[in-house]
Order: sequence, then structure tokens, then C-alpha cells
Amino acid sequence: MTTTDASRSATPLTADELARVDALWRAANYLTVGQIYLLDNPLLHEPLRPEHIKPRLLGHWGTSPGLSLLYAHMNRVIQARDLNAIYVTGPGHGGPAIVANTWLEGTYTERYPAITRDTEGMRKLFRQFSFPGGIPSHVAPEVPGSINEGGELGYSLMHAYGAVYDNPDLLALCVVGDGEAETGPLAASWLSNTLLNPARDGAVLPVLHLNGYKIANPTLLARIPEQDLMSLMRGYGYEPHLVRAEIGEDHATVHQRLATVLDLCLDHISVIQHHARTTPTVTRPRWPMIILRTPKGWTGPNTVDGIQVEGTFRAHQVPLSGVRTNPAHLAQLEAWLRSYRPEQLFDASGAPVERVGTAVPAGHRRMSDNPHANGGVLLRPLVLPDYRKFGVAAPAPGGTSAESTKVLGEWLREVMRANTDRFRLFGPDEVASNRLGAVFEVTDRAFVAEIVPGDDHLAPDGRVMEVLSEHLCQGWLEGYLLTGRHGLFTSYEAFIHIVDSMFNQHAKWLKSTLDIPWRRPIASLNYLLSSHVWRQDHNGFSHQDPGFIDHVVNKKAEVIRVYLPPDANTLLSTMDHCLASRHYVNVVVAGKQPQPVWLDMDEAMAHCRRGIGIWEWAGNDEGEPDVVMACAGDVPTLETMAAVDLLRQNLPSLRVRVVNVVDLMRLQDEKEHPHGMPDAQFDALFTTDKPVVFAYHGYPWLIHRLTYRRTNHDNIHVRGYKEEGTTTTPFDMVMLNDLDRFHLVMDVIDRVPGLAVREAALRQRMYDARQRARQYTREYGEDAPEIRDWVWPAR
Amino acid sequence: MTTTDASRSATPLTADELARVDALWRAANYLTVGQIYLLDNPLLHEPLRPEHIKPRLLGHWGTSPGLSLLYAHMNRVIQARDLNAIYVTGPGHGGPAIVANTWLEGTYTERYPAITRDTEGMRKLFRQFSFPGGIPSHVAPEVPGSINEGGELGYSLMHAYGAVYDNPDLLALCVVGDGEAETGPLAASWLSNTLLNPARDGAVLPVLHLNGYKIANPTLLARIPEQDLMSLMRGYGYEPHLVRAEIGEDHATVHQRLATVLDLCLDHISVIQHHARTTPTVTRPRWPMIILRTPKGWTGPNTVDGIQVEGTFRAHQVPLSGVRTNPAHLAQLEAWLRSYRPEQLFDASGAPVERVGTAVPAGHRRMSDNPHANGGVLLRPLVLPDYRKFGVAAPAPGGTSAESTKVLGEWLREVMRANTDRFRLFGPDEVASNRLGAVFEVTDRAFVAEIVPGDDHLAPDGRVMEVLSEHLCQGWLEGYLLTGRHGLFTSYEAFIHIVDSMFNQHAKWLKSTLDIPWRRPIASLNYLLSSHVWRQDHNGFSHQDPGFIDHVVNKKAEVIRVYLPPDANTLLSTMDHCLASRHYVNVVVAGKQPQPVWLDMDEAMAHCRRGIGIWEWAGNDEGEPDVVMACAGDVPTLETMAAVDLLRQNLPSLRVRVVNVVDLMRLQDEKEHPHGMPDAQFDALFTTDKPVVFAYHGYPWLIHRLTYRRTNHDNIHVRGYKEEGTTTTPFDMVMLNDLDRFHLVMDVIDRVPGLAVREAALRQRMYDARQRARQYTREYGEDAPEIRDWVWPAR
Repeated sequence: MTTTDASRSATPLTADELARVDALWRAANYLTVGQIYLLDNPLLHEPLRPEHIKPRLLGHWGTSPGLSLLYAHMNRVIQARDLNAIYVTGPGHGGPAIVANTWLEGTYTERYPAITRDTEGMRKLFRQFSFPGGIPSHVAPEVPGSINEGGELGYSLMHAYGAVYDNPDLLALCVVGDGEAETGPLAASWLSNTLLNPARDGAVLPVLHLNGYKIANPTLLARIPEQDLMSLMRGYGYEPHLVRAEIGEDHATVHQRLATVLDLCLDHISVIQHHARTTPTVTRPRWPMIILRTPKGWTGPNTVDGIQVEGTFRAHQVPLSGVRTNPAHLAQLEAWLRSYRPEQLFDASGAPVERVGTAVPAGHRRMSDNPHANGGVLLRPLVLPDYRKFGVAAPAPGGTSAESTKVLGEWLREVMRANTDRFRLFGPDEVASNRLGAVFEVTDRAFVAEIVPGDDHLAPDGRVMEVLSEHLCQGWLEGYLLTGRHGLFTSYEAFIHIVDSMFNQHAKWLKSTLDIPWRRPIASLNYLLSSHVWRQDHNGFSHQDPGFIDHVVNKKAEVIRVYLPPDANTLLSTMDHCLASRHYVNVVVAGKQPQPVWLDMDEAMAHCRRGIGIWEWAGNDEGEPDVVMACAGDVPTLETMAAVDLLRQNLPSLRVRVVNVVDLMRLQDEKEHPHGMPDAQFDALFTTDKPVVFAYHGYPWLIHRLTYRRTNHDNIHVRGYKEEGTTTTPFDMVMLNDLDRFHLVMDVIDRVPGLAVREAALRQRMYDARQRARQYTREYGEDAPEIRDWVWPAR
Repeated sequence: MTTTDASRSATPLTADELARVDALWRAANYLTVGQIYLLDNPLLHEPLRPEHIKPRLLGHWGTSPGLSLLYAHMNRVIQARDLNAIYVTGPGHGGPAIVANTWLEGTYTERYPAITRDTEGMRKLFRQFSFPGGIPSHVAPEVPGSINEGGELGYSLMHAYGAVYDNPDLLALCVVGDGEAETGPLAASWLSNTLLNPARDGAVLPVLHLNGYKIANPTLLARIPEQDLMSLMRGYGYEPHLVRAEIGEDHATVHQRLATVLDLCLDHISVIQHHARTTPTVTRPRWPMIILRTPKGWTGPNTVDGIQVEGTFRAHQVPLSGVRTNPAHLAQLEAWLRSYRPEQLFDASGAPVERVGTAVPAGHRRMSDNPHANGGVLLRPLVLPDYRKFGVAAPAPGGTSAESTKVLGEWLREVMRANTDRFRLFGPDEVASNRLGAVFEVTDRAFVAEIVPGDDHLAPDGRVMEVLSEHLCQGWLEGYLLTGRHGLFTSYEAFIHIVDSMFNQHAKWLKSTLDIPWRRPIASLNYLLSSHVWRQDHNGFSHQDPGFIDHVVNKKAEVIRVYLPPDANTLLSTMDHCLASRHYVNVVVAGKQPQPVWLDMDEAMAHCRRGIGIWEWAGNDEGEPDVVMACAGDVPTLETMAAVDLLRQNLPSLRVRVVNVVDLMRLQDEKEHPHGMPDAQFDALFTTDKPVVFAYHGYPWLIHRLTYRRTNHDNIHVRGYKEEGTTTTPFDMVMLNDLDRFHLVMDVIDRVPGLAVREAALRQRMYDARQRARQYTREYGEDAPEIRDWVWPAR
């Protein structure tokens, strides 16, 4: 078992270095405890009294001393090696520790000038923490240097990897809590090293921080045999280095041990990178990682009321809870605070003393001021080749057919070619399956493990990131975006729900950062959901769920956008818009199967610019419709058009208007969403009193949710996916959900006044046509030719 | 590296055993290919012609031969050892392989009598696969013996563990695909062995099936060094046994190797179990597992059109795609089918020959007929102690206060005590934090790793399953329920989104099985979401998301239920109902903080029975309200009651009606949900024309979605969470979202005709009160006493 390299000094720190690291650590611990407890008397210039204590004691002490220990040691090596490093805090609930460190670095005061580096600033620093009107308890976006909130655990390591891809000089120290390490997403993250190219990408130094406990339980990794844990890390391709600290152990010894291992790891990383960058063939190195075993709540109260706290789960949040009312607790808090010897750490004005001040690097070398952790400042726009050249010729509406995502792939290939330093494509092994394969003409799939003959476009310097984990795709992309780059995540529509919660956290991050002036906008997180609910011919029911849209629209309107381009040309225009946009989550749903191209490129651009519009060429209402046929999504648009064709053939005097929706948020009120439209405009499209038959891609009630305040809402009748499906043909799928052309015609007959009686025969014919279509598929296993071969007639 | 035990015979199979295993395997492979390709001519009694081929070729061949190989070998050892075993198919898209095996076992015909065990039955078996009106392509609920759909990958191993907990005699063979193994949930699953007690629980034998490729990519675990992979499995606590097969290798040799290893593993499991069951102290054994490395699409076409297919990603789905039009492909298909020598496997009638028929076990020993895989047949009701005894005395409404989940915990303790063989509690380290700690008076947390002094209620035979992974909690519980037991999953409300997609799949499973007569109803999946959006005092914005309800209600009304009990007594009544229910997903949201108890036990029972009702004691409308104050959720109920108090004090002549909703689905139309109410009843509660101010726990638009068809919908004004929040006090949180008592009063003034003008002064007072409340919290860090101390007045 490797713990240190025998040839190294066991005491790499000089007395001065040791003193500085230790002082910095003590200072951070002091400021952490202060934030959790103190309203006033920040430097204990007077004896602690109950009124100095916050009424609500909130915060997480347990993980904090370990976080600060690593922070202090990182500061030493950054200075010694001029490292370009960021610090990713997996245990993000240890917020006060990171805030403390950024205040010691000076960054906090630069970002928040009211929080000065003196006694008054320290008082405010303490008071604001987890205080109404103050700052959140976690390593939230408000904390300089953070790219990982850490409230919801599991994503630190994937964020760290995402950050260093294409950043060859960047080092991400990533602290993984042993609680977090139990989550699935984190467990999957270790193998991110199989897509990291040491020649082109930076490095992640993972630190598995074993403090042994979660909220009330021990952690699994702290309790499996140590040799198993080492074996596990080797299995993931790392060389683990163990550093252990015990309660009561001399801190100097621990500092020396950690310093030794940290130096060893950084030397190792240098060797790996040098070798990879001077050797033609890239192979997967065995990256170093650290297992840091420290007592939970280390240096805090050892026992409280006679019960062991330090080194147990009882140190998770606030170890001393009765401080305001229990004089013994108050005294113990004061002793705890004074144990860090604040008088040696802060001068009379409350500023850090020189020993502490010089223990941190300067300028952008400070981890809290590293521009990579505020990616917007580094963001360079994508070079976006003219997408219009990739449009499909559509001399007549619906006269040509195209696989939308395949057409998009041709343009994405050029985007990829033009942005080889700042754009990647992410997907759970579905880039080819979603027909974006053209990108492989200019790049490969990133792969830094064994490659054998017959493998398809795998290479260490590939820019397509594929792994069978939506979590990793999302997390890497988030890390990549948060550090100022661009990307696109393509996934099966149903399985994007796997990252619902990660989307939540990213959307919350975007929302929060809108209000943080020093955080600059980042590139949007773009989803292309293909292989959607209507075309799961192979897979059936388990692969059918269009509800990600519903999930997304629960988040703040300022940061979410949803697009349903009906054909290849509108998809091109939409995606160009999305890739150029900033600080949104864009959800684009588009199919990969051949389907009609309704609009030529100019029309598509105009339609996308409006986001919604009347397709005059398709209807015959001349401004006075009897019925509005609305549609959103490619398959619903196809069925609507076929229904309109049937209507115009069979009921030529019926005035039909066709409205197509690309930008779903246009349906909302302008007060609800920035893309929303005023009532007058909505009424002009949908009328105030005519029946609207709306064929929608997803769950029908979303349309009602978006339109329930509209004048004509009572007349809007929505068809969509109602959770019926199996492995079957495309037309059988729409029939199962009553979204098919025949049913849409029946809906019109049922809803336009007078038709139900007059057109009973037509309704019966439609009903019979459905039955025939169903019978045909049951008998022949495919859709009837007249359905498959239907095209919009040239009129 | 252990691959076999040297002391064992390298050829454990007798010639006869070998012949039977191989024949069974060939038969399954033949039937698999037949399902993918053939419409007719199932036994090749005539030369294959294009019209025998399906028009749409759907299915996944690649994983199938490996699945069938394991199935055949399991059948041998089940017979040899009289094993009680189930087969969990991680690569569930290998549906035709499992269907084939169940047909060979005879179970398929027993379940679906039309699919006889003869030529005509085989023809139907082939035709129905992935065919409109037929069966899905995956190991869907329709497949006998399945408890894991496998369309969405990642959950096989957690389902297997869930199945064997409390089933000491059960063995779950779990095939984990190497694609699936890349997912987070699967990666986290390996350590499920740290909560498995070999003395009390059954065994899982995981088989990591490395066929090397996903859809278009190699798999990571197939390409990392083999020693790393072995190390990884040892790190997870297993003893890995490697079995490898190469293209073209003699099948007999592979059979002997696999048989050797399988025997070794089963012997090892017996030793582990015997030891654990005869020794007082339980320690975590090193369980065996198998790494099975076989070529993808093994025994299928080696090359197609000169390109290598066997052993590559090209074998993933349908290796020969042009069979209907390309005579060379057709000939190759026929040769492929004939390579299994069907004439030796099926008799003239099409039934399996004796050698094949005797290669499978009989009755419930057949894995497809094991009752554990159709848990409903084994389901015994929970013994539910009388919850009324645990109710909180409430002599006057709101006069007492209780922590709802803590009260529930006392009853759950008795449920736990009375059902020590069939009930478990699952949670991501939040059972104590969600105040259900009373259960620890009768049980512990399951833990089969190192336990040290100071640990809190850990023991190998604990029945509380805690791990910091919502995925594992959900997956174990699903496996436990699907095998006929009961459970409750308690989680923070926000983070339950982590399992959105797993919920989807389980809800789809429940929906599908409603239509499968031989599948018996199972116990409901019960969620208790505590630490909800309104009380994230510690954690703030990242922990605030009430949208799981929105996600859930997208699924079929037949299988989903949502409850928002407003106090401790209604929570007891609700949970009793949920635990007794069958085949639903019940979502219960309830807080853990002290709050008023509004109803005494009898009232609570009556209220829960109705699901919604007028609180006559709270209002003063005497059947003719001026305004309806509706509420759903504990915090909204509190604010509504405080608002009603303000209204009744300040506007005594205003007739106020209070409607409280426990069962959210009551709001829907009876046509939309079985719990829905008819319009007349809705109108009687909410009036047809009076303003309704509705304070709702979650995102407000859900209430609109549920009620948009109601007569009075235009007058329903909903307040709820609108994605505003941070680490702050409870009252500041409701103010941030305009759900506070003062704002609700302002809403009433704004919406009741005439009040806006007449009561402008009152409105201003409410506005001022909000401002004061905000200022108070900003200054003192807690809510103002008059807010904290407010109680519903005795009237």
C-alpha cells in the first residue's frame, strides 16, 4: 500500500512554511466557527456573552476543518509551483469554510466591498452567514471560486473533469466527501479519467475526504477494509495515497504528511503531463489521488455534555447547540474559538497578520479568483458557420423529406471544425444513433483506454464525449460551461429525466447568478432531445416520456427556453440561436426520422424569429377561421397537416387556420415569460371564440397550463401523449394517443358548431379509417402505405 | 488473479449435462433469432423466403446469446442443487432471449395459452415480438420471471438486492451489462453488499457481462486493464471470477469453464450462508461474482458484407438488415438459424425435444415461474397497529402543536415491530433527520461493515436501510416491493427528483401490469417527503423544489396518489391508508417542524376519508361565502389559517369559507382521476362565482392544471412556491413567495368585489406588517414573536 514515496523527506515543510500553513488553517477554522455562531464580538475582544450569539445556529461544522486544511495546503503548493488551480468543494455544505478562505485571500472583500478585512468586516462576515438577507449556508454561486453548489451531492468530480477538459494548464483539486461518494453519479465519475487526454486536457486531483460520517450514519467507504478502498481506487485507474490524522495528533505531523503526499501527487501529475505532451501516443496514465482520513469536526469540541462529538456524526452541523442559554456551552464555544489563537492570526484592526496574508497566493492565482471559476469572463463566442447553407431545399411545403437531426449534424460538423478549443458534444452513446454522425468527419469520440481495430472513431483527442451515463454527460457539460466554454447534450427524450435534479441545480445556479454582478453570463446549456416519445419503434413504453419539458418550465422563466422545431430547416435555425445564446437552458426536441420539410430556409428563419405563426399556405381561413389547427412538435405537425388535408378535401367550405409553435414559451403571457405574447397577439392567432384543436408533442395539460388565462382557453382542445404506448409502428403510436390525423378530423367535427350532425358520415369514415389503419399494422407489422406515403398536396 | 479453483475439475459437466446445457442454449438462440426475423416458417420446414421475414426488423441480438448462456447454466445448477432462484436481466433489451427461455421452460405457454409449445405456437411467438398488437421488445412486465424492465439501464443490481433482503433462501442471479455498468446508479449498487446480512437475507450473484460494446462505443469496463477491473470488484468487496469466451472457440470448453466457476460461486455462497447462520456474529463476507467476457452477438453472423459484426458494436441490434431484399442476407440468415441445428432441438410438432425439455427445472423452480418474481402472489398484508392511539389530542383546533413526522414515527415503530419479516424503511441518511427516530427503539440501521463504539443504532439485522443514494433507496425498495413486501421511502422533498426517472419506470411497470392478468397487485410504493420546500432553514435554495408532485401527476391516474396532510393526525390517517393500499405510488408531503394540530383524530379520519373538505369551525360563511380560502399542505394551511384569523378580526362581516385539501387528486375531474370529484361537488365547495384564494404547497400552476375545466376556475387565484428562496427563516420564505398570511389577506382584498376601495387602509396595514416582519428577521435573524407565537384563537 503506497502512502508516501520512501525517497521523500518526511518533513518537506520548512518551519516557516509549516507555521504559515498552520496559521492559515487556524484562521480559516476560526472564521468558520465565527460564521456559525457569532453575531458580534468577532475577535473576542471581550468575553463572549449570549447576545453575541446568533438566535438560530445554522451551518455545517463537521466537514469544514478538512476543507480548510486542504485549502491551506493548496495555497502553499500554488505559490511554490505557480499553479493554475481551482478548488471544487464536494461537501458544499461546508460553505463557511470556503467563505472563510476566500475572505483570507482577499477575494471576498473585492467582490463584496462591505465585507472589509477588518473587525467590522469580520463582524459582518459572521453575521451574514445563513442569516436572513445574508448569504446561503452552502458553497453557493455567491462564493468566489465556486463552480459546484454542493447542496445536492454527487456532482463535484464530474464538474472538476468538465472544468479541465481543454484547459491543459488547469488543475482542479476536487474534494469528494465520503457521503457524496455513496451517490451513483459520484461513483460513476471516477472513470472520467478514461476520457481525459493528458496531452490536451488539464488534471484533476481527487481527494476522497473520509471523515467517517454522514448526518447520522457512518459512511460506507470509511468502514470497508482499507485495502478494499485502495483496491477500489486502483480499479478506477488511480494511484491512491493515504493521509490519516487522528484526534489529538500533533498538527505539525499531519501537515508534514499531507505536504509530502501533495508534493508527490503534483510531481506525478507533472511527469504524466510532460510525458503525454512530448510523446506521440497518448495512453491512459495512472493518475494520483489522495485519501484523506481526518476526524469529523476535527479541532472542534471533543465532547459535549460528556458525549463524544469530535470524530463522530454529532459534529455534522452545530456541535454546541445550547450556547445562548447554557453557560457551559458558551464557555466551551469561547474556549474553542480561542484554541485557534486568533490574537496570533489577526492584527488589532482585525486584518490577517502577515504570516496569514502571505500564506495565500496573489491575484488570479488565488483559487477564489481564478477566472476559470467565473467562466463568463473567459467566454469567447462560438464561431457559428452560416447554417443557411445546410438547409434543405423545400420548393413546395412538405415536398421534400429529411432527417432533421442528420441535417443538423452536417452543420454541427462545421461548428465542431471551427471551434476545436471550446466546443464539445456530449451524449450517452447516442450521437450516432441520433444521426449526428457527420461530426465524426472532423473529430472522434474521446477515449483514453484501449482502442482496438474496428473501433469507430475513437481517439484520445476526440471532442465527442460519450459514456452510458446521462449524469456524466450533464455534469461534464456543466463543468465545461461554468468554466467558459460551449456544448450540446444530445439524449433520448425519455431518459433525460435521469438528470432532472441536476438540471434543477444548474437552473438554480443560473437564476442565482443573474443577481450576482461579478458573475458573468455563461454559455447556455443546450439539450437536443431526439429519439423522442413518438418514435420509439424499437423500444416502446419504457422509452416514452415527454415530461422533461414540464419539469423544465417549473424553473424561472428568465433562464429556460423550450423549442419544438417542426422540420429540418427550423431545427437548424433554432440550434444556431441556442448555441449563440447565453445563460439559458435551451431544450430542443426534434426527431431523427425522415419527415417532411415544411418551410424553406427563409421561411424557417422568419418562423423561428416569431416562434409561432400562422401557416397561411396550409390553411384557407382568409382571416376568418372556423377552426384553428395548432401544432407543436414534428410528429404532431405531420398529423395536423394530414388532418388539414383531409378537412380541405372533405369539407372544402370549412375555413381552417394552421398555427405552428416552435418556441413553446410564446404561448405564455408576456408577464410570465420574456418570450410570452400579449393577449391581443394570442387572440389574433387563436381567435377569441373559435375551436382550437391543438396537437402537441408532450403531455397535453402543459398547453392548458400555459394558456389557461387566455380569452379563448375554454375552446382549446389538446391532444398529446397520454401515457399509452408500446413497441409498435409510428402511426399506431399516434393512434394509441388519439393524436392521429383521423382523430384530429373527428375532433374538428365534434367541436365546430353544426358539424357533428351534418358530418356524421365523414366522422364515421374517419373512425373506419382508423380501424383499418390499426388492422393493417396488426396484420402486416407496418403502417399502411397510404399513411406512410401521404404527402402534403401541391395546391 | 483467481479464475478457477485449482482443486476443481476443469470438466465438471458430464457428457449428458454438457449436451443438455448446449442444446438449451442453442434452442434459446434459435428462438431469439426467430423472434427478431420471422413472420412465418418458424422451423424452416421450407427454404426461407422474403415473405417469411418481418417488414420491420426490431430487437437486440447483441446481448442475447450471453443472457441465454447464463440462463441455461442456471437451469443446470437449479436442478442439481434445488435452488430457489430468480434471474434479473440488466440488459433488458435482450428481451427475445428471456422470452425464448421462458417458452422453453413452459411458463410462457402457461401464462399465454395461445402461444403453444408447437410449430403454430412458435410462429405466433416469433410474430408477436416487437409487432403491433404483440409484445414489447424488452424484458417488460409481460415477461414471466421479470422484475426489472431494463429499458432504462442502471437498476438491475439494486433490484436484485432488494429482492433478496429478508428472503434467506432466495438467490438472485443478476446480469449486469457492461453498458449499464457505466451508469451512476449501477456503480453505486455494488456496495449494496454492505447492507446485506447473510444470516437473514438471500444472496445475489452478480455477473458482469462484458460483451465489450454499447450501441456504437466500446464499454469502459471492457477496455480498462483487466487487473484494474478485478481490483475494482475486490474493492467493492467481491471475489471476482473471470470466464472468457472467444469467437470461434469450442463451445464445450466454454460450457465447462462457466460450469466450473458457477459451481465454485454457489459453493462459496453456501459456505458464507452456512457460516453466517451458525455463528453469532455477522461479518461482511467477500461474496463471489462472475465477470463473463463473451463476444457481442456471439454465434451470430461473423461478418456481413465483408465487415466484422460478431464481437463488435455492429451486432448490437439486427446484424443482417437487408434480409427481405438482399438474397445473400436471406441466405446468411437461414444458415445462421440452421447453425443451431433446430431439427435436433424441436420435434416434428415443434415442441422442445426431451433433451431440451429436461434441461429446465419444473414448477416454481423455473426462474420464470418463481413466485418471488410475481410478488403479488406472495404478498401478505401488513399488520397495521391502530394509528388512532398515536394521535395528538386536539381539544381545540390549533391549540396543540406537534412535529407531524415525529408523531408518525411512533406509529411506524409499531408497524416495524409488528412486521419484522416484510417491512423496511428506506432513506438517504434522513430517517433520524426527518424525525422518524422512534423506529430505532425496535430496530437498527442495517449495516454489515465495521461498527465502532459510538455508532448510533447500526446492526447487521437492522431493518432501516440508509445510504446516501436516493437511487439505491428507490431501487432496493422497488426490488423489495416487486417480490411481495412493503416499505416506505423517506426523503428530502427536493432531492426526490434524483429518482424521477426511476419513478417513471416503476409507474410504467404498475400501469402495464394492470393489464396482465397473471401479475398480481403489489404493495404501493410510498414516499414520505419531509424536510420540504418551506422549511429549508439550514440549506436554502438548492434544497427547495416541490416539483416531484408535478412529475408524478403526469403518469397514469390509475396508479398515482398525492397527499398533503395539514397536521400530525391527518398524516397518521393518510399513512395508514397508504401502507394498506396496493399498486399505487403514494406521495405524501409532510413537515417535520412543530406546527398546529388542526383536527382531532376523529375529525382527521373523516377529513382524510373525504380527502377535501370545508373546515366549518374555521370559517363563518354559513353556506354563502364571499371568498373561499383554500389550502393544501401544512405550511400553506398555517398561513391560510392566520390569514383567516386576520380577516375575521378585521373584516367580521366578510363571509369566509376555508377549504382544506389532503388528497390533491380530489381537485381533478372524476373522469380524469379515480379520486376526482364531479363538477357539482367541486362547485359546492368552491362556489361557481366567488373568489378563491388558494394557498398551495408547490408550484402554483399545478392547481390550475388540475382545475382548469371547473366552472369557477377563472376566480381561482393560487399562491405557491415560485422559485424564490435562500437560507432564511420560515416566515421570510413564505414572504419571498407571497404565500404569507398578510399577502393572502391582500389577495382577498384585491379580489373580493368592493373591498379594494373600501379596505385600502387594511391593505396598507397588511403591507406594513409584511415590511415589519421582514425588517425584524433582517435585524434579529429570526421571525418576529407575534408571528412565531400566533395561534388560532378559541372562538
